[in-house]
Amino acid sequence: MFGGSSGIGLATAQAASALGARLTIASRTEARLREAARRIGQVETAVIDIRDAAAVKRFFDGRDPFDHVVVSAAELAVGPLRKRGLGDERAAMDSKFWGAVNVAHAARIRPDGSLTLVSGMIGTRPTGAATMLSAINAAIDALAKALATEMAPVRVNCVSPGRIETPWWDFLSPADRQALFDRTASGLPLKRIGRPEEVAAQIVHIMQNGFMTGSVVLVDGGGAVA
Amino acid sequence: MFGGSSGIGLATAQAASALGARLTIASRTEARLREAARRIGQVETAVIDIRDAAAVKRFFDGRDPFDHVVVSAAELAVGPLRKRGLGDERAAMDSKFWGAVNVAHAARIRPDGSLTLVSGMIGTRPTGAATMLSAINAAIDALAKALATEMAPVRVNCVSPGRIETPWWDFLSPADRQALFDRTASGLPLKRIGRPEEVAAQIVHIMQNGFMTGSVVLVDGGGAVA
Amino acid sequence: MFGGSSGIGLATAQAASALGARLTIASRTEARLREAARRIGQVETAVIDIRDAAAVKRFFDGRDPFDHVVVSAAELAVGPLRKRGLGDERAAMDSKFWGAVNVAHAARIRPDGSLTLVSGMIGTRPTGAATMLSAINAAIDALAKALATEMAPVRVNCVSPGRIETPWWDFLSPADRQALFDRTASGLPLKRIGRPEEVAAQIVHIMQNGFMTGSVVLVDGGGAVA
Amino acid sequence: MFGGSSGIGLATAQAASALGARLTIASRTEARLREAARRIGQVETAVIDIRDAAAVKRFFDGRDPFDHVVVSAAELAVGPLRKRGLGDERAAMDSKFWGAVNVAHAARIRPDGSLTLVSGMIGTRPTGAATMLSAINAAIDALAKALATEMAPVRVNCVSPGRIETPWWDFLSPADRQALFDRTASGLPLKRIGRPEEVAAQIVHIMQNGFMTGSVVLVDGGGAVA
Repeated sequence: MFGGSSGIGLATAQAASALGARLTIASRTEARLREAARRIGQVETAVIDIRDAAAVKRFFDGRDPFDHVVVSAAELAVGPLRKRGLGDERAAMDSKFWGAVNVAHAARIRPDGSLTLVSGMIGTRPTGAATMLSAINAAIDALAKALATEMAPVRVNCVSPGRIETPWWDFLSPADRQALFDRTASGLPLKRIGRPEEVAAQIVHIMQNGFMTGSVVLVDGGGAVA
Repeated sequence: MFGGSSGIGLATAQAASALGARLTIASRTEARLREAARRIGQVETAVIDIRDAAAVKRFFDGRDPFDHVVVSAAELAVGPLRKRGLGDERAAMDSKFWGAVNVAHAARIRPDGSLTLVSGMIGTRPTGAATMLSAINAAIDALAKALATEMAPVRVNCVSPGRIETPWWDFLSPADRQALFDRTASGLPLKRIGRPEEVAAQIVHIMQNGFMTGSVVLVDGGGAVA
Repeated sequence: MFGGSSGIGLATAQAASALGARLTIASRTEARLREAARRIGQVETAVIDIRDAAAVKRFFDGRDPFDHVVVSAAELAVGPLRKRGLGDERAAMDSKFWGAVNVAHAARIRPDGSLTLVSGMIGTRPTGAATMLSAINAAIDALAKALATEMAPVRVNCVSPGRIETPWWDFLSPADRQALFDRTASGLPLKRIGRPEEVAAQIVHIMQNGFMTGSVVLVDGGGAVA
Repeated sequence: MFGGSSGIGLATAQAASALGARLTIASRTEARLREAARRIGQVETAVIDIRDAAAVKRFFDGRDPFDHVVVSAAELAVGPLRKRGLGDERAAMDSKFWGAVNVAHAARIRPDGSLTLVSGMIGTRPTGAATMLSAINAAIDALAKALATEMAPVRVNCVSPGRIETPWWDFLSPADRQALFDRTASGLPLKRIGRPEEVAAQIVHIMQNGFMTGSVVLVDGGGAVA
């Protein structure tokens, strides 16, 4: 589980743990890993920067093949392309897209196991309010579909969340965060944003469903059809 | 649960029943309903032809609103359009598409409930080997997405299976059936066709996942990316 | 050219005629055909109700194979499914979807020729404000893709327009029509609705482009990404 | 016109020139630019490496805004992700995706003008035989859709070709090249691969069609539906 120390990743780790899975969570920040481990219970932790391909490779080479691998990247700052510096845009792609690629490139997974990526709804429905992130998420969706044939019989899928209430938004003041959430919610059929547990539940389902591969599953409160 | 008497519908009823749900299954054939009820256990049955809009309406009008409604239509004979009679093609659409429409038109569902349709993978990836069924499934996928906004806050989703081993194929001899299954399997990343339980598991998940609406979820063994 | 007597169909006929094509236009209403013929110039006309499969078949059986066939259906009244009668919804599907099917089923087209259908943007991006029309358009998109394999080497494509300023809207008063157009336009990246000639130009291009088949081409002013 | 010195780019330049457009073609290699200029006729040339964001920016800053900008990237070596080095995969993305981003970021285009990107069919239908290129093309498709809202009223579209007979394949021996083309052709509805002129024709159409923005148009001989 890459990115298992907070938000969707942490919720997925907790859900998998509740089903009795033996877990390893990997993240960049030791302090967050420790805090996550405290909340999950029995879990191995590994300090890895997913952007570092060599480190990701060492991680897999030193271990037995996994049953299931999940990559839940951090959320990213967004904006129109032409208002942002290209350096920031490259950093976004390095973190979210190349992080997933690094794992897919090096992962050692049992033949009846699975790899699950996490993209984002705007890959399905791109928006000029977050141009680069639209492209990144679409690239991850396509990566999962292509890997489903390349890595078969390992199953490869992608869960694509809409806006979720995660700690990532804590950089905003509580009032600003609530205003943002309310604004998003008002545009959704369900009139609320999502919870990490709701995305995690679909991730855990897809890990377990032996006939799902190449699927991109929206968990977005109807954001793509709003 | 419309179409709950065999195949995917029956498997969904069994999975929902195992979770403690109070179930009603509806189907055209009383004998099959009785047999299904025997396998499910505690369940209400209703003899309804889903193609009969008035009968579907009477069914809902005479009952309290449901928490969850699932429409799992029969599988259908397929072929290239120009080799089939238009009467057969209309019958296919009456049964699978209009059956779903009739339910969506009349269904009374609680605000926090859900409607789940079942289409088929070739709606996502149309094929000239089954032209009309490609169109029907694409229409059901779009119907679910449109209903997700129309019926909100009721959640509306669609599960889109690939080839599944169901009793529907019993019209073939065991040898022909096996040959068909083997041929399909060899073209899939997972090298096997699916089981009704695998589709049912995603249907039950989507009924329960409170942040999913407007989603079309493939459970197809990678058929769409093969 | 089915539906060649007004709007997109008429504009396509005019564009094809300007390129020197020998044309036949078919429509239900003799008066409109006569008026269209007057505007196009040299053109054969045929009074046919596209919903009448036998009449469509007679039309093709009595003629040499065509180089190119275009089906540009009438626009349709729309609304949420549950607010409309099912009879109206069936009539909509009979006219737009089954009309296209009837032509595809009977058409005799030269091996290097083409069949072009016209759907609508909400097939790509369904909306609960026009539920059945979303499903119909998605079905036509999938029909074209499936026919591209079934009818090969005949090329089959679909052009999917957004809101276009056509005579169909003349049932509204000029003021209401303008208000509707302005409201739609304000939500589009291009801040205007389309003209029949713009859709016709893509239809004529797709007829002529020998490497396009199975394509669904949006001409929607950005409606699908707005 | 970035990438206007050979293949699809050159064909587009020739088609635009035939319509009387005043052209600038940009490419990395001066010798190829000179050869292209000889074939096109009246044309300005600019030696630019599209991967160099600063050079791309200087190019636009030193000129009047353009009516239309086209980015036709080089074709790329392909293969399954896990069989290729990550350095090669990054180079592929730098060239095709970031090249398009660099242009989109810096381009100065008149309000009624257009930006047209060129992706590739496997972005629509990803394949494990070319995993990274599937992701790159999907990213470019999404980039165009997002830019259609971000850069409005400038129109932004994407043309997505299938396999095309271009000089890029000249690294293969004539016999190997023909074998590859034949193998690809046999799997397509049209039983042949495409010509640069056929892709160019759709690019030129989309530049001129004032109601098209946010469209991704396949010119793939039916590859996506095969």
